[in-house]
Amino acid sequence: MYTILVYDTATERNAAVLRTCRKYLHHIQNSVFEGELSKAQLIHLQHELQHHTDPTYDDILVYTLPPGAVPHRHAWGTTNDKTSDII
Amino acid sequence: MYTILVYDTATERNAAVLRTCRKYLHHIQNSVFEGELSKAQLIHLQHELQHHTDPTYDDILVYTLPPGAVPHRHAWGTTNDKTSDII
Repeated sequence: MYTILVYDTATERNAAVLRTCRKYLHHIQNSVFEGELSKAQLIHLQHELQHHTDPTYDDILVYTLPPGAVPHRHAWGTTNDKTSDII
Repeated sequence: MYTILVYDTATERNAAVLRTCRKYLHHIQNSVFEGELSKAQLIHLQHELQHHTDPTYDDILVYTLPPGAVPHRHAWGTTNDKTSDII
């Protein structure tokens, strides 16, 4: 399913969050990732992020779309497609 | 169509961006808004934001979903539903 992730975490944890998200998704904007994930991958991503975040402080929002639905992305600013490789 | 907006703007412009987005969408996380918009509303929102942002510095990402598609939102952290009134 198509997934959009937005994180808002403490500065000292940003690098680990970024590294973890990059393993599963494309990096689109400073704090935004997107890509296609299976349910199993989503669960793995959640578990990995739990090791790197403080749920009482950090904030991670994940949108999953219905099967087959792919969003249209509009960039109203400086965003370039920072699409990075996915392992 | 269902719309998700993420902004990353200069601090001095955040208040105006926040105020503008709140007129059209629900405020979900610090920099994340979502809601149902018509094509006309989306264009109005874009025009209003152009008055309050610097496209060479600020970054606004907007995802629009196919008709009828509503995403599932997962909050892996402190996010509360900050849903605010829409005019």
